[in-house]
Amino acid sequence: MPERLTIVKIGGKVIDDTPLLEEFIRDFARVKGKKILVHGGGKIADKVLQHMGIVPKMVEGRRITDRETLDVVVQVYAGLTNKTIVALLQAEGCQSIGLSGADLNIIRAGKRKAGPVDYGFAGDIEEVDIAPLELLLDSKATPVLCPITHDRQGQLLNTNADTIAARTAVAFTGHYEVDLVYCFEIEGVLKDLDGGEVYPELTPLTYRQAKENGELSGGILPKLDNAFDSIARGVDNVIICHYKALSQWGTGNFKGTILRNP
Amino acid sequence: MPERLTIVKIGGKVIDDTPLLEEFIRDFARVKGKKILVHGGGKIADKVLQHMGIVPKMVEGRRITDRETLDVVVQVYAGLTNKTIVALLQAEGCQSIGLSGADLNIIRAGKRKAGPVDYGFAGDIEEVDIAPLELLLDSKATPVLCPITHDRQGQLLNTNADTIAARTAVAFTGHYEVDLVYCFEIEGVLKDLDGGEVYPELTPLTYRQAKENGELSGGILPKLDNAFDSIARGVDNVIICHYKALSQWGTGNFKGTILRNP
Repeated sequence: MPERLTIVKIGGKVIDDTPLLEEFIRDFARVKGKKILVHGGGKIADKVLQHMGIVPKMVEGRRITDRETLDVVVQVYAGLTNKTIVALLQAEGCQSIGLSGADLNIIRAGKRKAGPVDYGFAGDIEEVDIAPLELLLDSKATPVLCPITHDRQGQLLNTNADTIAARTAVAFTGHYEVDLVYCFEIEGVLKDLDGGEVYPELTPLTYRQAKENGELSGGILPKLDNAFDSIARGVDNVIICHYKALSQWGTGNFKGTILRNP
Repeated sequence: MPERLTIVKIGGKVIDDTPLLEEFIRDFARVKGKKILVHGGGKIADKVLQHMGIVPKMVEGRRITDRETLDVVVQVYAGLTNKTIVALLQAEGCQSIGLSGADLNIIRAGKRKAGPVDYGFAGDIEEVDIAPLELLLDSKATPVLCPITHDRQGQLLNTNADTIAARTAVAFTGHYEVDLVYCFEIEGVLKDLDGGEVYPELTPLTYRQAKENGELSGGILPKLDNAFDSIARGVDNVIICHYKALSQWGTGNFKGTILRNP
């Protein structure tokens, strides 16, 4: 039976709120076995951009990364957020190392081609090299990945953290049993027709049924489609839960939604 | 005969000037054998601070790092500067990894105690752990160290890059023959009494003589004292040269000052 690898994605307001972040880091540090943390950027980059008089540009929830914005997101994601998390993990006794996709060439991306929208220095992942990550995991270090990649030609690129988590998880399938945990500020995948109840489990079949009968709709669907795509590519479990529930994952008290093949 | 390790410190305006930085990175990528790059911060942090309406505070050439300033220097040094250098090295085919002292617990520092001057979140190095650096060097990766450390209690600290280079060099003595190269915008240690000539070599004896007869004085002396201290602690050569001379180090055309025991 292969060893288990847990990849946790954290984003949203936890990143910006020091007490919440410290609490989350304590829980993450206690996750057993090999693990990787992928973090998003939070709102700090927007605050820095505003301080500098740069208006954040978004189209359909995605950031337009012009050169000035790229410099700021590299500063915040790869610098402040990444190193703050690493220092907090170290204080919890979790040997960790902060990485961008440029470090050890872990993630090669291509600059997104300008279509109707030019996203600027946004990078779409082309390749995840797990060999350097394996070296670090084998030496008992926990990689902490920020959402910055590069094109291997010297250009840094801004890349979606959810996608980094998913692609990294898929790259490790076959080497490990992979759990991919998305920590949000919601308690799981909510049943639209029910007050606050979450699905404890979704399979490809029950997911299709829930979509067909209208139980599931809206903005969660693209995320779930991506999650089931990761499962189709070999990830064992995708877990969607509140960041405060991470410490219960693997116990009988866990509350959240587990996506898996039956 | 032990293997050679070359530790290069780069700072000053090279960091801020993209064409100069690219040229330097090409030269550094070609340095043979195991190597580590330590970079300073340049003036970008000051520009960001100014943009944010924070006036850089300096006492005797040292930055006062209050909390706001710490956030900015972590952003710039560990984020923008470090990852820009790593991406450029990767483009030159040099497998590299950007690190702060918090990553893999490489450098533990203590917050400098407030005396007549309170330097804020300035860190004085307490310990350099070479084991994780050795692991990376043995896997053919080149560490790129930024001047941010931590106290292992969760606090990031701003630390002098020259000192990081020196302490790292000393920590590797006994394991490697260590060359420590300080790249500046001067061509070496200038003879005060002579127009633009540099000392090709200084030993502890000739250095003492040059101080005694007034050939050497002023601001360079603390740097040279530190350099000879590294030599006394086992570093084989300390090289002080122009950043454009790095590509000639080890050849007959090298111009710069070599500090060593005779």
